[in-house]
Amino acid sequence: MSLAAPDRRLDQALEDVTRLLEKHRVLTTFTHRHEGPKRDLLEQLQQRQNLTELHARVNPLHPADLAHVLERLVPEERLLIWQQLEDRQRGEVLLEVSSAVREALMEATSHERLIAATSHLDADDLAYLADALPEDVLRTASRQLDAGERSWLDQSRALGKNAVAGLMSPEVVFIRDDQTVDDALVHLRQRGELPPQTDRLFVVDARNVLKGSLPLQALLLTDPLQPAAAITSTDEVVFRLDDDGEEAAQAFERYNLISAPVVDDRNKLLGRLTVEAVMDFNRLLAERRALERAGLRGEEDLFASTWASARNRWPWLCVNLVTAFIASRVIGAFEGTIQQLVALAALMPIVASIGGNTGNQTVAVVIRGLALNQFEGSNTRYLIYKELMVSLLNGLMWGGIMGLFAWSIYGKLALGAVMMGAMILNLLLAAMVGIAVPLYLDRAGRDPAQGASVLLTFATDSCGFFFFLGLAKLFLV
Amino acid sequence: MSLAAPDRRLDQALEDVTRLLEKHRVLTTFTHRHEGPKRDLLEQLQQRQNLTELHARVNPLHPADLAHVLERLVPEERLLIWQQLEDRQRGEVLLEVSSAVREALMEATSHERLIAATSHLDADDLAYLADALPEDVLRTASRQLDAGERSWLDQSRALGKNAVAGLMSPEVVFIRDDQTVDDALVHLRQRGELPPQTDRLFVVDARNVLKGSLPLQALLLTDPLQPAAAITSTDEVVFRLDDDGEEAAQAFERYNLISAPVVDDRNKLLGRLTVEAVMDFNRLLAERRALERAGLRGEEDLFASTWASARNRWPWLCVNLVTAFIASRVIGAFEGTIQQLVALAALMPIVASIGGNTGNQTVAVVIRGLALNQFEGSNTRYLIYKELMVSLLNGLMWGGIMGLFAWSIYGKLALGAVMMGAMILNLLLAAMVGIAVPLYLDRAGRDPAQGASVLLTFATDSCGFFFFLGLAKLFLV
Repeated sequence: MSLAAPDRRLDQALEDVTRLLEKHRVLTTFTHRHEGPKRDLLEQLQQRQNLTELHARVNPLHPADLAHVLERLVPEERLLIWQQLEDRQRGEVLLEVSSAVREALMEATSHERLIAATSHLDADDLAYLADALPEDVLRTASRQLDAGERSWLDQSRALGKNAVAGLMSPEVVFIRDDQTVDDALVHLRQRGELPPQTDRLFVVDARNVLKGSLPLQALLLTDPLQPAAAITSTDEVVFRLDDDGEEAAQAFERYNLISAPVVDDRNKLLGRLTVEAVMDFNRLLAERRALERAGLRGEEDLFASTWASARNRWPWLCVNLVTAFIASRVIGAFEGTIQQLVALAALMPIVASIGGNTGNQTVAVVIRGLALNQFEGSNTRYLIYKELMVSLLNGLMWGGIMGLFAWSIYGKLALGAVMMGAMILNLLLAAMVGIAVPLYLDRAGRDPAQGASVLLTFATDSCGFFFFLGLAKLFLV
Repeated sequence: MSLAAPDRRLDQALEDVTRLLEKHRVLTTFTHRHEGPKRDLLEQLQQRQNLTELHARVNPLHPADLAHVLERLVPEERLLIWQQLEDRQRGEVLLEVSSAVREALMEATSHERLIAATSHLDADDLAYLADALPEDVLRTASRQLDAGERSWLDQSRALGKNAVAGLMSPEVVFIRDDQTVDDALVHLRQRGELPPQTDRLFVVDARNVLKGSLPLQALLLTDPLQPAAAITSTDEVVFRLDDDGEEAAQAFERYNLISAPVVDDRNKLLGRLTVEAVMDFNRLLAERRALERAGLRGEEDLFASTWASARNRWPWLCVNLVTAFIASRVIGAFEGTIQQLVALAALMPIVASIGGNTGNQTVAVVIRGLALNQFEGSNTRYLIYKELMVSLLNGLMWGGIMGLFAWSIYGKLALGAVMMGAMILNLLLAAMVGIAVPLYLDRAGRDPAQGASVLLTFATDSCGFFFFLGLAKLFLV
């Protein structure tokens, strides 16, 4: 038994692979230098031997570990390893790597090799890869499935990866409700092996309608002569194909599920959802959101080409240039005022930036409330009232401090007062926009974490400049 | 069997509770209006009957659902429900609510009632609540534990919640390696019930040293007369008390575990880690990070008081005021230049803001790379080179476009050129800072997602103003 913590195992694998790659690099450079008539058979042999060693080191690795190694390599080294893999292992690795790396690997692989790599995969693995695989590869690879699995594959592609259909697996162990516990045990022993993450068998009637489920624990602990129906637990969380993946994930967490049945409109058993699929889904979702929050399309390979990375960042850059340009025109409208009192130019970014920062705090609190489904008609009003009070308090206090600074630096009491007034106004605006924007985006069915921050910063920048320069124009010049 | 999706069940509960609370509000108001001699026995009875109904509706709810309902209520309604709960249910609810709501509920409860609520909890539940419970409550509630559990509780508190010690449960089912499968089955039937999320029994020798584990599946499928050792699987992921919780969570995901053993330095079995604990840990971590990224302390109750919320936001506000103030002083140094060409005041925020936005994209990519452990000596150089190239490309292109705008609005070709030059410089700086800051924070053992954005924005603001106004001073005025 390996008692080493998993990370030590991984580190060892990465270290070995890096060493072999380094050796390969040295050998290749050396061979190139002696190219031509002088090229030595011995060097070629050495190089081949090194590749064999690499082959022997990487193929027995767990696909998840191998994926981890590949993610950390620059593109050319990654391909070198990829070429050393056996077809079966390639298929498993494709399931584990990030989508950006997957794309890169698939681009460098012929359709024939892709078919060889994927034709041993089962239905839910193929469903997972379906969007990434070329159509002809998917068609050929899915020939080994039975008709039911193929039709499920089509259905799950149609409903998309964010629905339960895209997360479930059709591989499910069930028994009939008229069987006894002993029948069930015989049935299981005949099967010989259960799919991973099987904590329960599903119980169906003659028409395949779900009647409940039978935990393996109960099977182990019960008198074998009892009818299965007697120990079938009926208090089930049951999903449908079009249930939202995120809500399903929440239910898994709330009720500590390992697996749960998926049924159609007439309660017929279609498959099951496992905690493994749910955890993968949660992680991918979190990663995608973290990148999207910074305006990056779903996934970007850390080692993607310059050109691909640059293009990936354009849409966001463009949006930001437009909002910054508009804020700049707000200032442009007050150029006369700034000309008369140039201190305004130095102080105005403070007002804008504090508005943006506190507004983003409100956004974070509201988004968390939305994620926990905490919003109800009556408490929204309470929240708006509270956030406005917080802003007023902070505006008076920190606006006052900044006003004192402005007064002491420029020796103008009125300038300090304008500073404080503008900060209070901008903080109040930030609170309102910070509540309204995520709530609006959520109601419009969009992800509030995505657009909220851009819209908020746009509002607090433009209005921050406007409040400050407007008050200055009224009272100072 | 309830075939309703879990969310519909929750919505129903919330709706019922809200209706009863509404009725309570009406009755209370009505009673108050008639206070004094006119106070009517009938009204009191109605009110009491309504509370009984509330009591009957909320107590049978699943604690997780009840927690969900409580999270959505304003403080006074929340307390009203809390008062209707039975002691046992209260203890379960404390385990499920967010820490901010937990604090509020515990503040409103006497120590005696807290003891009654928590004294039926098992060791790992008490460990989970340990930091929140008053010392005397914890001491009294842990009296029901046996000596081993109590000593484990102390140990787990000492190592903290982010280590495996804080996530594991000492409740573990094990058998001896000299038993047969049949012995194991008899042992299980005697126990009568297995803890939730038990997918395997652990196999230990006479000295309690872990030998491997025995999946329930194998128990079901194997000939009962075999020795347990024959079907014990030995390729285990094994954790130690001080292993990092986040790394453990990654291992659960990578190897699709349901439960895994936790051992001490001499490989003696101490307990197990379950996928349930891992999922809870992942969620809490993600939530805490999302709030901390906006500069909010771990958790903020959406319905906390104005004063508590305001104070929670001060540290961040203060940091931001300081950085904004310094950036403002950079501008202050160029007041003479701005006086001569006031267009600079309107254009400078564009340079600063684009630098911040693209830098945050680099930060997001680097943080993701760090989370996936993708950084190695050699590929960091590749990444720096690539990000600088991306910035140069974007600077030339979008800086060029902004330069054209500046030229066309103000009719000065040189102003456009200064704009473009400053944007290129600031984007290059943003790329360097965007890589360096998260890598540095990570190496210093801090969370890169937390401080990176503040430091970056500080750099791109101050330097953006400096590049733009500096170039303008050199070439324009």
